Amino acid sequence: MTKQEALNILKGKIAETQAIGQLSNVFHWDSTTDGGAPKTSFGYRSASIAFSSGEQYKRIVADDTRAAFETLEGDASLTSEEAAMARDFARAYRLNSAIPKAELEKFSALTTEADNAWRAAKDKSDYASVESYFARIFDFVRRVADWRGYKDHPYDALLDEYEIGLTVRTLDGFFGELRGTIVPLLRKIAHSDAKPRKVKERFLPGQQRILTYRLADMVGFDSSRGRVGETVHPYSMMINPDDIRIAIAYNGDLLSGLYSTIHECGHAIYNQGVRKDLYPYGLSDSMSMGMHESQSRFYENIIGRSRAFTGVLLRLLKVRFPYFQDWSADELYSAVNIADPSLIRTEADELTYCLHIMVRYEIEKKILQGEVNTNELPELWNALYKEYLGISPKKHSEGVLQDTHWSGGAVGYFPTYALGTAYAAQLLNALSKSVDWKGDIAKGNFSKVHGWLKENVHAHGGLFLPEEVLLKATGERFNPVYYTKYLNEKFGAIYSV
Amino acid sequence: MTKQEALNILKGKIAETQAIGQLSNVFHWDSTTDGGAPKTSFGYRSASIAFSSGEQYKRIVADDTRAAFETLEGDASLTSEEAAMARDFARAYRLNSAIPKAELEKFSALTTEADNAWRAAKDKSDYASVESYFARIFDFVRRVADWRGYKDHPYDALLDEYEIGLTVRTLDGFFGELRGTIVPLLRKIAHSDAKPRKVKERFLPGQQRILTYRLADMVGFDSSRGRVGETVHPYSMMINPDDIRIAIAYNGDLLSGLYSTIHECGHAIYNQGVRKDLYPYGLSDSMSMGMHESQSRFYENIIGRSRAFTGVLLRLLKVRFPYFQDWSADELYSAVNIADPSLIRTEADELTYCLHIMVRYEIEKKILQGEVNTNELPELWNALYKEYLGISPKKHSEGVLQDTHWSGGAVGYFPTYALGTAYAAQLLNALSKSVDWKGDIAKGNFSKVHGWLKENVHAHGGLFLPEEVLLKATGERFNPVYYTKYLNEKFGAIYSV
Repeated sequence: MTKQEALNILKGKIAETQAIGQLSNVFHWDSTTDGGAPKTSFGYRSASIAFSSGEQYKRIVADDTRAAFETLEGDASLTSEEAAMARDFARAYRLNSAIPKAELEKFSALTTEADNAWRAAKDKSDYASVESYFARIFDFVRRVADWRGYKDHPYDALLDEYEIGLTVRTLDGFFGELRGTIVPLLRKIAHSDAKPRKVKERFLPGQQRILTYRLADMVGFDSSRGRVGETVHPYSMMINPDDIRIAIAYNGDLLSGLYSTIHECGHAIYNQGVRKDLYPYGLSDSMSMGMHESQSRFYENIIGRSRAFTGVLLRLLKVRFPYFQDWSADELYSAVNIADPSLIRTEADELTYCLHIMVRYEIEKKILQGEVNTNELPELWNALYKEYLGISPKKHSEGVLQDTHWSGGAVGYFPTYALGTAYAAQLLNALSKSVDWKGDIAKGNFSKVHGWLKENVHAHGGLFLPEEVLLKATGERFNPVYYTKYLNEKFGAIYSV
Repeated sequence: MTKQEALNILKGKIAETQAIGQLSNVFHWDSTTDGGAPKTSFGYRSASIAFSSGEQYKRIVADDTRAAFETLEGDASLTSEEAAMARDFARAYRLNSAIPKAELEKFSALTTEADNAWRAAKDKSDYASVESYFARIFDFVRRVADWRGYKDHPYDALLDEYEIGLTVRTLDGFFGELRGTIVPLLRKIAHSDAKPRKVKERFLPGQQRILTYRLADMVGFDSSRGRVGETVHPYSMMINPDDIRIAIAYNGDLLSGLYSTIHECGHAIYNQGVRKDLYPYGLSDSMSMGMHESQSRFYENIIGRSRAFTGVLLRLLKVRFPYFQDWSADELYSAVNIADPSLIRTEADELTYCLHIMVRYEIEKKILQGEVNTNELPELWNALYKEYLGISPKKHSEGVLQDTHWSGGAVGYFPTYALGTAYAAQLLNALSKSVDWKGDIAKGNFSKVHGWLKENVHAHGGLFLPEEVLLKATGERFNPVYYTKYLNEKFGAIYSV
């Protein structure tokens, strides 16, 4: 096979997987937004979901795909786009082909069933009814680790799927550092006299919606190349380079809707900023969950919960809602930065959020080490919450049953949330050297921040590995100290501790 | 190949085409409703559309498909569902395989281009800029007629694609009958003293929307198994047996939005009423465009524009809109039945509608006979409008450029619109023997009408040919006299002529 033949094969596969991917992504959007497809019809829909993923799989795990990326491996004459394309196929082939096809299909059926069982179990707070599913899922992922192979720790084989190269060694260091900062900081905050004002009003969906449009526009989401939908669990999604969408939930809690809007805009702005010429190489999206999360959290937390932005935000709120007439920007700043240990990860504040991740990380690690059985999970969960956050759930629905990840088989995913947050702080440090972000944001001007991120992160899409992006953008490798420093300074000041 | 093997092959093909069909239908819905996918992204989307239709084609025109339906042909031991499934595959194979694949692909690219050219041409009312596309398209369909073969008239080969077994002979008779009724009736109406009241108010989308929901519910659209969306050109669509959707346009014209709602509900109620066990045989939809249109027009015209219904409708309107306070039900009845020759087919009234179809029918027939060239089309169009409707367009955008069908390659489609109307009148005659429809509808009670249609038409889905459905439901073959009688009686009374 010649180099040109190999490139043509891979580009052909990409065009086809993109054609299928658009269909299945739109199908998912249709299931979950603006009322969604009728619930009664979901039985019929599963055939289309299985069809799309089967068709995608066929194009990755194929003899000609393998022959093509093997032909290109180590070819120094490739452009960086071609090399990245071959790298991604090799990686996807390795991740997928390691698992016997029949096992993968059984697992896919299992997680569909498990997900239904989990929803019912969560409603009734009944761990026992889902335990056997968890047992089979954890058993499967342990075998996945073996099939894929690993050097130091079986968990590494799973972590790598969501964040290339991520290991237990890295995370132990990172989370150790983080705990050493957050836990004492929280202890001091608990004794602080600061009593942040809280938003007590409930708001109508229509009121929340109009704010979403205004905010999305302000932070730089290009609505001519995307859509804003309504859903139950917010998310963002790329259909193609000119159609990047966010779906937002309006539940009456104004701040929650507003910050999830900024969060999803962070993801969407990332995708909207990728060089369009990367599309035919399949590089239109970040290859790193952590880097993606760094952008959503950069917009949501670093910018969105900054003192500079709360001034701008308050002006928007005062125009629309009489409730905020007597609020000051400082009060709003404290209100959006309340640090208060709570039980539900998705509702956690910026400071305590990573502790929720660490609980899950420790549990997954122990599971992969074979140190804990599924019947011990609730107890372990509660003990770790007590240890890290000082509180412990009364009901499993607010504890071990709160997340969808395990019933969906996504073991190794959680740490990317924490990693993204730390990437964001390291990027902020670099950005601050050339952009007066506080001054700009206070004026409601996002263009320089946006421009810096686009140039240094977004534009590259999936061209570089996360460590390469960080190195290029910040001049150094991943360093969690920027994040701990950021947390200490920010929350130290807010709570005067 | 055994019978069982053949059945399994065809059922497998159906499951796959349904999986793909759900994806592509949802994709189309997503492009056209509630704001729609960003216009800028349409270039990327075409790859997914081409992919789906290619995948569908592959499953129809395939050696094993052919071997399977040939194995089953004439097998007397098949159930009626199995036989209908084999019949449909044989038909689809014949229609598709007659055209060389390379030609089909060229034609598909041509119609995409032509459709864009037509939109631009319509905007500028510039026929010359689209003429060469029309020429190539008509040339292609003439060759399609030859490839497929025909007995009496080349047009028959195209008509059959949209309505199985439909011929020029049938249509000449039908349209002759129809012209003999409508043209003299219109002449008398033109001299009538009746001056129907007109709705002059404009309404907000929100006001129209709330009426759509109420009406859809009243006429029997099951919203737990479907959705109502907003679009520019109204349509209905089946995703699967539990997800049947209508998309409505709200342009300020209350009656137009309201009657297009009832029209689309007619299509949707048809699909919602099909026996669910027909799905695995690919028989969940009517196999007849005419029969489908018969249901939409039954609901829209026969029921919706009846005196019985306008009483119910007026009560709904009075509750919501002060504008209608001084209207009587008789006035509303006349207002929704104004018979007035106009230029635009989609805005035509019940009486003149079929004349618009006849113009197109005559033109398509002449094209297939090779009697007219594309440069003569505008002149011929205008002459036929003058002859049939007594008026003639000043601009091509209101004349020969008004429809999307020709640039899309759908030659032979128009007649099914008129056919459906006549089917509806024949069905009404049969239904009236056992259902007091006027009495029921006057009470806002659709259940018996709905029940009769469901039992006699909807439930069968694609099991029977249109002529079989008519025969079973009405006891006789297609007979256009019911329709001409209906028009004479209804409009004779309204206009006292």
